[in-house]
Amino acid sequence: MTTYDDALALDAADPLAAFRDRFLMYDDPVAYLDGNSLGRPPKATLARINEVLTQEWAGSLIRSWSDGWTELPTEVGDRLGEVLLGATAGQTVIADSTTVNLFKLLHAACGLRPDRTEIVIDDTNFPTDRYLAESIAAQRGMSVRWISPELTTSVTPDLLASVLSEQTAVVLINQVDYRSGAMIDVNALTAQIHEVGALVIWDLCHSVGVVSLNLDRDEVDFAVGCTYKYVNGGPGAPAFMYVAKRHLAAAEQPITGWWSAQDMFAMASTYLPATSIRRMLSGTANVLGIVAVDEGVKLIAEAGLDAIRVKSIALTEFTIKLVDEWHVPIEVVTPRDAAKRGSHVTIRLPHARRITDDLIARGLVPDFRNPDMIRFGLSPLTTSFAEVWNTYDLARAMTFEQ
Amino acid sequence: MTTYDDALALDAADPLAAFRDRFLMYDDPVAYLDGNSLGRPPKATLARINEVLTQEWAGSLIRSWSDGWTELPTEVGDRLGEVLLGATAGQTVIADSTTVNLFKLLHAACGLRPDRTEIVIDDTNFPTDRYLAESIAAQRGMSVRWISPELTTSVTPDLLASVLSEQTAVVLINQVDYRSGAMIDVNALTAQIHEVGALVIWDLCHSVGVVSLNLDRDEVDFAVGCTYKYVNGGPGAPAFMYVAKRHLAAAEQPITGWWSAQDMFAMASTYLPATSIRRMLSGTANVLGIVAVDEGVKLIAEAGLDAIRVKSIALTEFTIKLVDEWHVPIEVVTPRDAAKRGSHVTIRLPHARRITDDLIARGLVPDFRNPDMIRFGLSPLTTSFAEVWNTYDLARAMTFEQ
Repeated sequence: MTTYDDALALDAADPLAAFRDRFLMYDDPVAYLDGNSLGRPPKATLARINEVLTQEWAGSLIRSWSDGWTELPTEVGDRLGEVLLGATAGQTVIADSTTVNLFKLLHAACGLRPDRTEIVIDDTNFPTDRYLAESIAAQRGMSVRWISPELTTSVTPDLLASVLSEQTAVVLINQVDYRSGAMIDVNALTAQIHEVGALVIWDLCHSVGVVSLNLDRDEVDFAVGCTYKYVNGGPGAPAFMYVAKRHLAAAEQPITGWWSAQDMFAMASTYLPATSIRRMLSGTANVLGIVAVDEGVKLIAEAGLDAIRVKSIALTEFTIKLVDEWHVPIEVVTPRDAAKRGSHVTIRLPHARRITDDLIARGLVPDFRNPDMIRFGLSPLTTSFAEVWNTYDLARAMTFEQ
Repeated sequence: MTTYDDALALDAADPLAAFRDRFLMYDDPVAYLDGNSLGRPPKATLARINEVLTQEWAGSLIRSWSDGWTELPTEVGDRLGEVLLGATAGQTVIADSTTVNLFKLLHAACGLRPDRTEIVIDDTNFPTDRYLAESIAAQRGMSVRWISPELTTSVTPDLLASVLSEQTAVVLINQVDYRSGAMIDVNALTAQIHEVGALVIWDLCHSVGVVSLNLDRDEVDFAVGCTYKYVNGGPGAPAFMYVAKRHLAAAEQPITGWWSAQDMFAMASTYLPATSIRRMLSGTANVLGIVAVDEGVKLIAEAGLDAIRVKSIALTEFTIKLVDEWHVPIEVVTPRDAAKRGSHVTIRLPHARRITDDLIARGLVPDFRNPDMIRFGLSPLTTSFAEVWNTYDLARAMTFEQ
């Protein structure tokens, strides 16, 4: 049986353990396994936001827009692209929310395939993605072609093959499933989608900051994701958007604002979109949000995404091992093959809702997912093996109490 | 001739003078007359953001979403609506940017008048408004009907009468013109637009926080505006959106996300929009941005919007008086009738660009507007009469130097 001392030994040997001190943490919660919903705040983020408030805003006031703020969406976008996405400069921006960005990308993608009639998406996808696919299909006179994957495997090449055709305009896929954690091979599926002349949008909400990505190498068309999970950008931090360079000249998004115009300060009488990735912007940049994303990205760059992935795998392995020792039959929904999962582990068990609530009431915070799943989010820069052990230990005791 | 001592006397008699201490200010800039581009930071905002960072984010983590964050868009929206818009609860939200919100409102308004073919807008309107009117008309197979007002008067009843018809779906108007400061009577124009069965969207970017508004009383349909000018919400703070209660059941916006769904946590397979104002939301709320808006609104509530309007008029009167004493013929673009202007004064003069740049280089910050205008933004909670006098005095000296 794995013991608490085993967990402590793993923490002692963890090369990323020191990064916990770079975040503001208190004794409560005792264990936080929900960094895949909202990551913890880096201390550097608090310092940077205070600098923006007291120096850039209070001190320089309007002059800060020309002293750097105007470039923040692309400057931080480039950094996030390079460190986290495998994207060279000029293809990534930080702006708006995942929902708004996905709306723009779906319209842009469909606009690039004007003679095609179908948007392909899976019915296990996150609600926003499904809702948008349906409403945009309706807005454009197209239809949604649904696929119905198993939660444990998510979208497979076979499933895709059963729906892809010359009618497919775009496929929208979550790379890491938000419930099961099942992870999909970006390279293979992108190639399969391109074979029929369709485009792909990868939703990277549960991948970015914890999984290695090579969007340029894999010839991805579009990608989107949030920054408040493993990037630790804070509650409601702005999302990112990736548009491959080859699509920039023709990609049209419908929310045309002064920030997407070719010369935003010319206040021109006719709208001409910027020729750069700025054409994907709309309104005024959320400065506080973008600098928070910047600090999150810098911290990941310092730790190294490869080292983060190594610890992520160790944490998920450890969690699955503990669940297997539970001595009550608990279904592990997450793939047991480390190459096929992201950084959370989801189990299915009776009374999952009540157990989650009881754990949270005692200061150990996992995440409940309808109808009967508990999700353990493992954020390599902040999650310790001891936190995982403590949560498992109490959860197990609760199942015996029933 | 008005002297610097006259300015000091006005400051000494100003009942709102003490509010300057509620903002974080330094000796540089010497004079800041651009609070209508970016307001100054309230000290309370800095404290509130730090509380959110260190307590709600770092301390409560994900639990803060159920402890109040989820309600922030409507809670702060209600407060802004009550204090600044004359709107009862349930009709205002804080979300996204002005551009994104205007995109939603234009689609919602056109959707409520499906048999009508025209969007009416003036060609002096802010670029985002014009660009969106054009792109949404194109998206919906409609056309834009332009009106061309004089800068000094903005949209008039006569101009409107010349284009309104049974084809008009919606009219989009800036209540205070961003260049001239000309202010329009919401009540009269709303009634005129309703007479032909059309709807109105008021863009309140240059009104909110400094002009009295009565959206409910005036039977306004929709309104939108930013919060980083007179509301002092900070760079890129989220915007607000007002939808009259009578339209809530039928108003449909296209960016359908999990935050606009009837039960956002049910993750339902079919999208059903919320029946409340939440149907206008899309993605995750920008927490830091919304609490900053909240503190800005609270400060205005404390000072009183009526007192703010009184000082605003005094500041604009004082500015116009100084310009009249310039002894070089300077055109005042802003209406001389206080009832017909907002809170900035715009003048037209030779070398406006160079004079603005020189002023800014010497720490006095007005705003340049193409092609030959200088705009003096007068923010009653933070602008002193001495700041106005100093800026005028140096600008006048510069015109003599030419």
